[in-house]
Amino acid sequence: MAAKQRFALLGSGFIGQVHAQNLAMHPDTELVMVADSDPSRAAAVAQRYGAKCAEVSAAINSDTIDAVLIASSTPSHAELLLTAARAGKAIYCEKPIDLSLTRARQVVAQVLPLSVPVTVGFNRRFDASHQQLKQHLQRGDIGGAELIQMVCRSSEMPPLSYLQASGGQMRDQAIHFFDLLRWLTADEVTVVGAMGSALAQPEISAFGDVDTSVLIMQMASGALAQLDNTRRTGYGYDERISVLGARGLAESGSQSPQGVTLWQGNQQRRPGLWPDWFSRVKESYYLHLDAFVRQLNGELTADLPGLLDGLQAQAIAEAAVQSLAEKRFCTVEQITG
Amino acid sequence: MAAKQRFALLGSGFIGQVHAQNLAMHPDTELVMVADSDPSRAAAVAQRYGAKCAEVSAAINSDTIDAVLIASSTPSHAELLLTAARAGKAIYCEKPIDLSLTRARQVVAQVLPLSVPVTVGFNRRFDASHQQLKQHLQRGDIGGAELIQMVCRSSEMPPLSYLQASGGQMRDQAIHFFDLLRWLTADEVTVVGAMGSALAQPEISAFGDVDTSVLIMQMASGALAQLDNTRRTGYGYDERISVLGARGLAESGSQSPQGVTLWQGNQQRRPGLWPDWFSRVKESYYLHLDAFVRQLNGELTADLPGLLDGLQAQAIAEAAVQSLAEKRFCTVEQITG
Amino acid sequence: MAAKQRFALLGSGFIGQVHAQNLAMHPDTELVMVADSDPSRAAAVAQRYGAKCAEVSAAINSDTIDAVLIASSTPSHAELLLTAARAGKAIYCEKPIDLSLTRARQVVAQVLPLSVPVTVGFNRRFDASHQQLKQHLQRGDIGGAELIQMVCRSSEMPPLSYLQASGGQMRDQAIHFFDLLRWLTADEVTVVGAMGSALAQPEISAFGDVDTSVLIMQMASGALAQLDNTRRTGYGYDERISVLGARGLAESGSQSPQGVTLWQGNQQRRPGLWPDWFSRVKESYYLHLDAFVRQLNGELTADLPGLLDGLQAQAIAEAAVQSLAEKRFCTVEQITG
Amino acid sequence: MAAKQRFALLGSGFIGQVHAQNLAMHPDTELVMVADSDPSRAAAVAQRYGAKCAEVSAAINSDTIDAVLIASSTPSHAELLLTAARAGKAIYCEKPIDLSLTRARQVVAQVLPLSVPVTVGFNRRFDASHQQLKQHLQRGDIGGAELIQMVCRSSEMPPLSYLQASGGQMRDQAIHFFDLLRWLTADEVTVVGAMGSALAQPEISAFGDVDTSVLIMQMASGALAQLDNTRRTGYGYDERISVLGARGLAESGSQSPQGVTLWQGNQQRRPGLWPDWFSRVKESYYLHLDAFVRQLNGELTADLPGLLDGLQAQAIAEAAVQSLAEKRFCTVEQITG
Repeated sequence: MAAKQRFALLGSGFIGQVHAQNLAMHPDTELVMVADSDPSRAAAVAQRYGAKCAEVSAAINSDTIDAVLIASSTPSHAELLLTAARAGKAIYCEKPIDLSLTRARQVVAQVLPLSVPVTVGFNRRFDASHQQLKQHLQRGDIGGAELIQMVCRSSEMPPLSYLQASGGQMRDQAIHFFDLLRWLTADEVTVVGAMGSALAQPEISAFGDVDTSVLIMQMASGALAQLDNTRRTGYGYDERISVLGARGLAESGSQSPQGVTLWQGNQQRRPGLWPDWFSRVKESYYLHLDAFVRQLNGELTADLPGLLDGLQAQAIAEAAVQSLAEKRFCTVEQITG
Repeated sequence: MAAKQRFALLGSGFIGQVHAQNLAMHPDTELVMVADSDPSRAAAVAQRYGAKCAEVSAAINSDTIDAVLIASSTPSHAELLLTAARAGKAIYCEKPIDLSLTRARQVVAQVLPLSVPVTVGFNRRFDASHQQLKQHLQRGDIGGAELIQMVCRSSEMPPLSYLQASGGQMRDQAIHFFDLLRWLTADEVTVVGAMGSALAQPEISAFGDVDTSVLIMQMASGALAQLDNTRRTGYGYDERISVLGARGLAESGSQSPQGVTLWQGNQQRRPGLWPDWFSRVKESYYLHLDAFVRQLNGELTADLPGLLDGLQAQAIAEAAVQSLAEKRFCTVEQITG
Repeated sequence: MAAKQRFALLGSGFIGQVHAQNLAMHPDTELVMVADSDPSRAAAVAQRYGAKCAEVSAAINSDTIDAVLIASSTPSHAELLLTAARAGKAIYCEKPIDLSLTRARQVVAQVLPLSVPVTVGFNRRFDASHQQLKQHLQRGDIGGAELIQMVCRSSEMPPLSYLQASGGQMRDQAIHFFDLLRWLTADEVTVVGAMGSALAQPEISAFGDVDTSVLIMQMASGALAQLDNTRRTGYGYDERISVLGARGLAESGSQSPQGVTLWQGNQQRRPGLWPDWFSRVKESYYLHLDAFVRQLNGELTADLPGLLDGLQAQAIAEAAVQSLAEKRFCTVEQITG
Repeated sequence: MAAKQRFALLGSGFIGQVHAQNLAMHPDTELVMVADSDPSRAAAVAQRYGAKCAEVSAAINSDTIDAVLIASSTPSHAELLLTAARAGKAIYCEKPIDLSLTRARQVVAQVLPLSVPVTVGFNRRFDASHQQLKQHLQRGDIGGAELIQMVCRSSEMPPLSYLQASGGQMRDQAIHFFDLLRWLTADEVTVVGAMGSALAQPEISAFGDVDTSVLIMQMASGALAQLDNTRRTGYGYDERISVLGARGLAESGSQSPQGVTLWQGNQQRRPGLWPDWFSRVKESYYLHLDAFVRQLNGELTADLPGLLDGLQAQAIAEAAVQSLAEKRFCTVEQITG
């Protein structure tokens, strides 16, 4: 049996607490320290799981930890990533590396030579259904991918303050699907066309954001992809990916909780979708952590999203931002130079 | 190309009109005459399809017809069946042969030696989905049948006058499923247990009828079957058959018209079931006619329900009636002697 | 009861024969004449339905007909349309008016002042599910349309000869959905972005066609739309439209024939989609004809696709063709001038 | 915040370990002691959750525990129940109280006057979908229950040794559904008819057991119910309950894990059912425990299955056993005297 990986959690807000619970629950990890810019929040989380509360730099440099989980606010990711890499720790870093692709590249360039294990928080790769979809593609069950359709629809507008700091719908919401698209197809996006509107909350156009958008993408292989995003549906959280191949269609579809069907008159009423993104995707955080830990323990696990994946998904997002702004197709190469 | 089979339609009420349209539409049949105890009704139907109006006996004995379709009121079936058989006509006879099993047996005993082609109106055998189900069973796709579950639920109570003349829920409604059960499994029912209540319309218990019933049946092979019947659902017409075999389940399930799905809040609303029995089963009348015509034209068609099938389904119905009345399991052998 | 509308059918190929059967079946129409550049084909169809065979111009100008149904080859549409309009006949004209938008406009300009009833063959508006979808939108059941997703996927590549004469995927296949989009939303497309590849049959790129394409569209209201097209799936014919509104999603989804579900091991297997486009859409031809006849008989029927609808859908197709060719977003205004 | 309820777990086999994990996970319970006839098994479970290992009687009588969870082998339930009740502990007792209904009644008669909180392990009442079904019935959403259909199908034959000690399919498997039927309808079963066969494993008929059975039941209200049971499907674990009321149908249906749909040729393939009973029902153990703890903490929770529920479900099972053996309808009154 492998020794437990001892983690420091950096950042104990909403998503940090999700990670705290997973670190406490996983048989091969131990939550040793919790650090947060708000010490009282760190203390509360630490106490709940029997961990210690620590200063960020003390946590990173402690001999009693093997790995850090960076779940702090986005602007601090890059610095913490670099510090932890220099301290030789294994790193699970929430996405994005930095909202500035330039800054992200600089940090990645410094971190890569240090050769520490790093995974970037594209947890949706670990959705159990998306994993099955990937297996069908890898086994060639439907032939080569020709047309990929992706739906990313959140149930409710986030607070305005969140949106203002988010980098916009492409960098904050769609980015997960840019990564999924690359991962599922083992192919690269070359051209992006995007259109968007602020329909659910028109005032966000004041800072250049949209809440509803449609994208088309050309892949290097000639395959074509679609993505639509909305920040607010009236019907729960809807995440779907279907891939049309030369010999059929494979679909990781909308998901609903179990429940009762009512048949009355000329209608049947069934449970709708999961009410929000978190209820749908929460299990994938655990599965991502599990894959990372198995990697650290020397078990072979393919497809862990790494630093270069982080940069590439961001590059596609930048191309999409440019396409939205300039109302033209944009190549990713333009961004990656 | 085969010559057209020239039909006389005997009885032009609701179901007779269904047959009239099918006879007019089928490329290999010709509706030549229509007879009815109500001549004005016969005349209207005849005119609509370019047929002649005739007396019943004249129609049966005319040289210009090859076949009769008996769709008159139940008490006249037996006599018309016998007359038409003696006239050497091919016969499609609506079920039942006669409400009295004794009378039905007498007529069948007289008709069989005449060797005319006869099919009895168990049209549901020709439901396209039930046919697929039968194929799966015949091919052994799910292994031997072990547990058959059947649901037969009409959407609305028929008029009281209909019910009073119907012979009761077992002889009128459930009888189709007794036939389907024998046909699908190629097995015979040996014991029946039935419970029933008049829940939707309590006054029908005055003449000994029920509108809701549940049945269990033992088959000669040891397989077990269930059937439930209701005369009135609040959700359309529901007909379902599933067969559990040693290697899986095959299900000819509830059917709905196409339509729109609405996703709102925490619900999805889809089209419900067909509104009534006729919208669900109407195509099977045509398919049954087609199979009969192909048989007359010398094409091999298996599984046409014949006179002995009619008697056997009635025997099961009688055992069910007895079980309901005497509150005990009843053997079919008791009935068939 | 209204007098029957007497039709001449112009063109008796595959789709002409579909119309012939509908004209014969409809209680308020009469198929009087059939004309075709191949007289033997016309004769066969005429005989089957008890109609006369005629020269095209004789048919159009005959006093014994009230209406013409133009189902001849595309290049002849415009001329026949004009001739029939000048003869004062009501006209059901298969789409497109002409592959050349310029020519189409010229003819429409001449036909409109003649004030004869004309409908253009956008039969998919009469799909029963799409009609329900439209009703939900009109009643405001899901609030204003914000994001429309359309899927148009044929099961098999048409013959190369067909493709070469078709005008390409935008003008031939996608055009139905440009019309559906305008009709469903009562909104206009302003900008189109399209990407396409010849993946199923690479040789069609020799004449500039694609078999797989993805499109995004901006609507005048700010709403956004997506469409994907393929000429060949490995899973039957897939046509779907969903509309996300401010208060939910309404979906006219993929359609399958009825059949059996098999549950075995860890899988359920259900019937797939309709095998080809015709089995899915054939009913809509009848319903379109029916709506046109009711309009001729003075019954109010909204939403019959007219000449201007034909031009507008073609304009969107031209913008899409331009976007594909020039790899940029194109406005429809550029086309319509 | 309520004090934690301190539990002793009596019995640490498969189901005891399920309870151990739930007791460790629940925020308001504490797993203090584990006792088992096999001390090494108790020790292993105790260690995993930081509990102590104890003798059974010491555990029951310890001042440091408030409640016991009886998950030992069936023959020991009655004695432990009585001992714990005399010690004044709250009790969660796995079903059945005793395989002998006579013995079960004797113990219940002794325990009831002691007025300790007791719940009997009918955990399926706490299935989230069945709970929704109950709410629909209580609110009258579908009117009064008229026809209840229940399906209870396990995926794989248990070991022969298990079956020999189980009391047979009625007492071991169907009993959960006798309880669910009473709970959902708030009605009592009056008459039972049952047929059964040993089809999956014929040798179990040597000790009078069946693996496939169908039952019909009359309720005091006149409502009718059906149940089918099998020990081995070829398609996973299938548990379903539907209730037909005067105004529609409510269905807590078959449940499948999430996954990918493959559309190929003329088929769609979807995930099948949960592979076994435990994956389907495991959550209900936690929810049952949670309801019990909330009751202990003075929060109102209705519908906790109690000792009398245990006796009544067993009485129905005895009537079913009698019906199977004697091939006649049996009243429950005959059993309850």
